[in-house]
Amino acid sequence: MSNRSQETPLDEVAEVMRRVRHRHPLVHCLTNHVVKGFTANVLLAIEAAPAMVEHPEEAAQFASIADALLVNLGTLDEAQMPAIRAAVQAAASSSRRWVLDPVAVGPLAVRTRFAIDLLETPPTVIRGNASEILALAGESGGGRGVDSASDSRAAVGAARALASRIGGTVLVTGAVDYVVGPSREVSISNGHPLLTRVTGVGCAMGAINAACLAVADDAFTASLATALWLAIAGELAAGTTQRPGSFQIALLDALDALDEPTLRERAKLGTA
Amino acid sequence: MSNRSQETPLDEVAEVMRRVRHRHPLVHCLTNHVVKGFTANVLLAIEAAPAMVEHPEEAAQFASIADALLVNLGTLDEAQMPAIRAAVQAAASSSRRWVLDPVAVGPLAVRTRFAIDLLETPPTVIRGNASEILALAGESGGGRGVDSASDSRAAVGAARALASRIGGTVLVTGAVDYVVGPSREVSISNGHPLLTRVTGVGCAMGAINAACLAVADDAFTASLATALWLAIAGELAAGTTQRPGSFQIALLDALDALDEPTLRERAKLGTA
Amino acid sequence: MSNRSQETPLDEVAEVMRRVRHRHPLVHCLTNHVVKGFTANVLLAIEAAPAMVEHPEEAAQFASIADALLVNLGTLDEAQMPAIRAAVQAAASSSRRWVLDPVAVGPLAVRTRFAIDLLETPPTVIRGNASEILALAGESGGGRGVDSASDSRAAVGAARALASRIGGTVLVTGAVDYVVGPSREVSISNGHPLLTRVTGVGCAMGAINAACLAVADDAFTASLATALWLAIAGELAAGTTQRPGSFQIALLDALDALDEPTLRERAKLGTA
Repeated sequence: MSNRSQETPLDEVAEVMRRVRHRHPLVHCLTNHVVKGFTANVLLAIEAAPAMVEHPEEAAQFASIADALLVNLGTLDEAQMPAIRAAVQAAASSSRRWVLDPVAVGPLAVRTRFAIDLLETPPTVIRGNASEILALAGESGGGRGVDSASDSRAAVGAARALASRIGGTVLVTGAVDYVVGPSREVSISNGHPLLTRVTGVGCAMGAINAACLAVADDAFTASLATALWLAIAGELAAGTTQRPGSFQIALLDALDALDEPTLRERAKLGTA
Repeated sequence: MSNRSQETPLDEVAEVMRRVRHRHPLVHCLTNHVVKGFTANVLLAIEAAPAMVEHPEEAAQFASIADALLVNLGTLDEAQMPAIRAAVQAAASSSRRWVLDPVAVGPLAVRTRFAIDLLETPPTVIRGNASEILALAGESGGGRGVDSASDSRAAVGAARALASRIGGTVLVTGAVDYVVGPSREVSISNGHPLLTRVTGVGCAMGAINAACLAVADDAFTASLATALWLAIAGELAAGTTQRPGSFQIALLDALDALDEPTLRERAKLGTA
Repeated sequence: MSNRSQETPLDEVAEVMRRVRHRHPLVHCLTNHVVKGFTANVLLAIEAAPAMVEHPEEAAQFASIADALLVNLGTLDEAQMPAIRAAVQAAASSSRRWVLDPVAVGPLAVRTRFAIDLLETPPTVIRGNASEILALAGESGGGRGVDSASDSRAAVGAARALASRIGGTVLVTGAVDYVVGPSREVSISNGHPLLTRVTGVGCAMGAINAACLAVADDAFTASLATALWLAIAGELAAGTTQRPGSFQIALLDALDALDEPTLRERAKLGTA
């Protein structure tokens, strides 16, 4: 589909961005040790409010204070499992939306079992690369862990199965991103290869999605806003530098700077 | 009071900055997972030496090696509690000064009990936002967790009560900072809103305070030096960029660059 | 020895750098909490692939997936010990090379015992500052913990003893770096003082070494490539800024940008 026929989704995306910037949703992040600082800075760059509360008792208590929850399994260990379980239960009880980022599910056994268990309390959104989405859906992914050996297109079928199972939205990320909801699907062909040269970009995407979920009317639009916001910011950042260190900083600046005209001008949406 | 009548405090502050830069105090940080890297880089930017030692046995052992201790409760969990207890006891036994940063005390139950227990071995300085200081003093704060819903001025009474209770100094931070000591009080009207768009700035403030405590004659001057050093560096950084990513980097550069004439020219001190 | 007589080692170093950039070795990092994000970004800047897997069962499983392993003891605690033991055993069983970074071994008792135990399954490379190498070899180091109170030259004898004991290579770092292998030794007089003003540079060096080990013909060349890559990148970065915040970013950019002609032009090798 052409951009012209997508004016309605872009209107919705622009509205989500405005709401994040005005309401400052508080996002509870139970995420991996590598990316906690960067994730918090990404949330601050989009004007959301990050919080990481890790004690199981407090994680449960915090679920009714925060506006949305992110669960990322990147450095899952025995200490984090009860905190995640408690937070997910409390989020469900408090009708808070939550995002599951099943990092490296597939080749690693403990987190794969854990992620499948978590689906019993269905997340609102699952965000992963192709390997992870294939593995979580019960298909073989072939990933080496945190990076994806599969093309994102190859996971759209698995994403549909998962979206149907959780009654929510799946965001498959790669060179092209796919947002697969219960009744709508879209591809996003924005982004830049330098986004893969900074640690935690994919993980921070889950956090952006949680912030957008806190304010959006529906999960599909929240995930579409997430993919566009990050990918177009990556394009803007890549316009200022070719190197990964300065790109990391330029990306944070661009998440803050991205405005509605630029969003509309650059968004490349298509069919899934 | 005018800056003119404050020449003595600024002389003391300039002396503290000189000592930090020449003596490189070793600061033991038991702090939260989100800000460990940034905290270490802030300490290196002011020419202090950071160290994070987390095993309870080693944390106790390290207290007599380090020059000061920072305890920050941001991501308190069961594993960190015994390390903090051991480090605080050992710091007290070794006559090392220490800073308590009661992050998100108030709405979260486990850390609130833990922080109140810690006051039994009184910290030299408590640094927090208004919500945290109100909550730690037993008054209602209304915070949502890591950010502060209260104006810093509203917590000066609670800061006085706490300062009297610990026989030390309380640094209340916000748009205006207040240093409340047993016999002196001062407000600092420096800073910039971008300081709230970078994760860990408040937490790093506790680490700067510990570094200054290690070399200052008294805790009041150490906290005043901390507030001025960070807030004026924030002003300098904001003079180079309007965006949060590049501001984070410019802030580290400005902490390193801030010199005595700029300190004296920019410091805006007042009554508490 | 002059650079002219060192054309062969620099040829080997250039080949290691090419291989890292083309093969993207997957480096499993069991490292300290302070530097995880920076370490991952350093690995991405040299085009290696970082992964941190911390659950003991998964850490063992991941050893046969990853191309090399880094073990860094900076924030060792009870939870990390079994993960490190499992990963080291699995790396040995899978014939994966691994690097030990004995951060602050010497003054701190728990990690010193733990590091000595780890030597039973010998690492391919040990990377440390003089205090750490002296302490691990059983000589007194006098370090205050994470920084080194000793000149790197003073630890070359201890490095020889350790290299002989593990049948591998020891990289002693400081103002001058020394690579001490079973049959070859070399000093590297590159670098810049700003490298000590950014947290995690030494720790990231261990990660670069693991990446180089995954592709190099021998451990000596891998460690020499590591020392040159980082130290010359530091010189290039210092050519763009005098301040620690922007230096951190410029260093990541320079790790990415460093090319073979610059390597050959700047490398200052000597006898150990």
